[in-house]
Amino acid sequence: MFKRFHQLYPADSMASDQKIYRASTTAPVNIAVIKYWGKRDPTLNLPTNSSLSVTLSQSDLRTHTTASCSSTYRKETPEDSLLLNGKLEPLTTPRSIACLRSLRALRSELESTNPSLPKLSTYPLRLASSNNFPTAAGLASSAAGFAALVRAIADLYELPQSPTELSLIARQGSGSACRSLLGGYVAWDKGSRDDGTDSCARLVAPKSHWPEMRALILVASAEQKSVSSTAGMQTTVKTSGLFRQRVEAVPQRMLEMEKAIREKDFEAFAEITRKESNSFHATCLDTDPPIFYMNETSKMAIRAVEAINKEAGRTVATYTFDAGPNCVIYYLEKDWDFLAAKLDLALDGKEGWSKERTSDAGGLGVGNERVEEGLKNGVSRVIMTSVGEGPISVQDHLIDEHGKPV
Amino acid sequence: MFKRFHQLYPADSMASDQKIYRASTTAPVNIAVIKYWGKRDPTLNLPTNSSLSVTLSQSDLRTHTTASCSSTYRKETPEDSLLLNGKLEPLTTPRSIACLRSLRALRSELESTNPSLPKLSTYPLRLASSNNFPTAAGLASSAAGFAALVRAIADLYELPQSPTELSLIARQGSGSACRSLLGGYVAWDKGSRDDGTDSCARLVAPKSHWPEMRALILVASAEQKSVSSTAGMQTTVKTSGLFRQRVEAVPQRMLEMEKAIREKDFEAFAEITRKESNSFHATCLDTDPPIFYMNETSKMAIRAVEAINKEAGRTVATYTFDAGPNCVIYYLEKDWDFLAAKLDLALDGKEGWSKERTSDAGGLGVGNERVEEGLKNGVSRVIMTSVGEGPISVQDHLIDEHGKPV
Repeated sequence: MFKRFHQLYPADSMASDQKIYRASTTAPVNIAVIKYWGKRDPTLNLPTNSSLSVTLSQSDLRTHTTASCSSTYRKETPEDSLLLNGKLEPLTTPRSIACLRSLRALRSELESTNPSLPKLSTYPLRLASSNNFPTAAGLASSAAGFAALVRAIADLYELPQSPTELSLIARQGSGSACRSLLGGYVAWDKGSRDDGTDSCARLVAPKSHWPEMRALILVASAEQKSVSSTAGMQTTVKTSGLFRQRVEAVPQRMLEMEKAIREKDFEAFAEITRKESNSFHATCLDTDPPIFYMNETSKMAIRAVEAINKEAGRTVATYTFDAGPNCVIYYLEKDWDFLAAKLDLALDGKEGWSKERTSDAGGLGVGNERVEEGLKNGVSRVIMTSVGEGPISVQDHLIDEHGKPV
Repeated sequence: MFKRFHQLYPADSMASDQKIYRASTTAPVNIAVIKYWGKRDPTLNLPTNSSLSVTLSQSDLRTHTTASCSSTYRKETPEDSLLLNGKLEPLTTPRSIACLRSLRALRSELESTNPSLPKLSTYPLRLASSNNFPTAAGLASSAAGFAALVRAIADLYELPQSPTELSLIARQGSGSACRSLLGGYVAWDKGSRDDGTDSCARLVAPKSHWPEMRALILVASAEQKSVSSTAGMQTTVKTSGLFRQRVEAVPQRMLEMEKAIREKDFEAFAEITRKESNSFHATCLDTDPPIFYMNETSKMAIRAVEAINKEAGRTVATYTFDAGPNCVIYYLEKDWDFLAAKLDLALDGKEGWSKERTSDAGGLGVGNERVEEGLKNGVSRVIMTSVGEGPISVQDHLIDEHGKPV
């Protein structure tokens, strides 16, 4: 009997065949200072221009994802599945399929060169994922989400590919996700090949090069659902006359931004960042029909930054807006006290706002009452964070050893 | 005694010398469908691009100006003076001085070729001016103002120059004023000469060619003083990267707009108008620091026009915004009933809103509640008007036969 069983299920094989394989990672959000807007190939997510972002700390904003697979899943849930913040999401979108297919192909290669490896590429995948921030806040959750998905499955499959190589896969899930596979200051080079094999993330500088960079996110209550960035950017490409000029201007801007980061020149970083954001939103407005992502709260945040820099007599802060009304203010650690004192009257009492500072809260000063009032009314919460690392492997699994969500 | 007096003041000369000379005109507002934004010569008011506007009816919006001069003014008020809406305004700005100097030069030419003419060019000017709309509404009042000033003085001086020739002078007062010297559909050709002598207004089509054009102005309560257009446009020229592309695109747009007007093609007129407005505001946003003229009410007005066109299944309305939040909706007379029914829920009760229509007020329909609410809260008054004539000579003087304001 034992022999017969052994023949059917050889010991090694049996062990591996019944096993629940798991790998978990956290992945960061990134906020672009040179924006991705417009695809030259919508299927492959190939952009019309290169972009550049700051990866934000995962202490404050991160997606936590566990990837798991097992032959035993075949009987229960033969389809790949994803539990996102406790809700079952389909993995049947073309973007998810593209990511899973690429990762399985890489695993399959490994398995074919080393036949002793378990055939994980043939097992159903069971994923679980959760964010430590509200998805509704409109904080580039898809970037962290797809970066975590790709990184977790790559770890599960024990793939040898570098983050840059994996970024090619994450890019197909969500363009900006490719930049979340690296920490610090990250470029996404648009590439020139039709198959997109040179359109990937590249490290401009690690966090350690310029660790003083801080980000203060003013989460603005959006009154209505905005145009999705996927739909919006392609309408811009098709209808905006000004868009071409923007695309032509980006290469020079990329060079200047990389130089600013290399030289830790905040003044230059700040100028490019704010002009870039405004140029991006200008092409949104030049779209037909026009797209408005910024609202009155966003404008007040801009005016606040302008007032703070004017008061300081130098550039202590800059702003950028993604496809939504939230303002991301970049500043350097050393200027926190000054910034905090200026913003305290407007942000006092908001969730996430810290009181830790040494100087008195003087507010934005005379003439800026309307700005302070606008922020008071329009900012729903604040996130204080900083430049951070790329994805981190963790042992805290969202799927237990029996394959069940925890 | 009589003889002596006669010697000092010869009868003819005395009569003309004591006389109060007067001429009055009304002049219209114009609302550009291709915008003037950016000067290539700030002193001469030479624009970076040509523009095109619709002159609006003076029944609804006009400046009424009386120009008067007399040798007797020398004793009382030797300086040129302007009473604007009952308030004494200086005529000492470089722009006013430029206009008065040019008009006096033309009069002086006349006087030198015909010595029997009274030497009006040597007399102080006394001007009085009033608008039939609130200046605070932000309705291109300087265009109507300088057009009326130039036209009234030209009439006072009995100058033989054509409106196009006079537009060269009005342009130096306020760029867009040159277009208010003509009725109907008016181009301002940017010209190429350095001295600006070819930068003047040109009739594209008189009102009679396409009299069905209507304008509905939604006056939006502006919460704060905007950047003046004079200051704003030069900051755009200096700092906006997208501005160059806009300037390059205008010549083609001018040709298309003139064709649309010639062919009375409202669909084309509407598309160019809305894209032009959005392109202009996009370059404002691309300015450093960014300029925002549109507010939330403006955005709601755009959404309302989009909803109305969608509901109609064709283009019945278009929108344009000058350097402020007011929305100017252009439409054709035949579509009034449809438009009025759609907008009535949002505009009911507003000053200036007419109830005269035959169809039921259905509102903007499901899904547009927020748009209606936004307009309800943000529109302070409505002006219903139409394409109109150029300046009109009137006998209703704002200065009496003794040289006093009435």
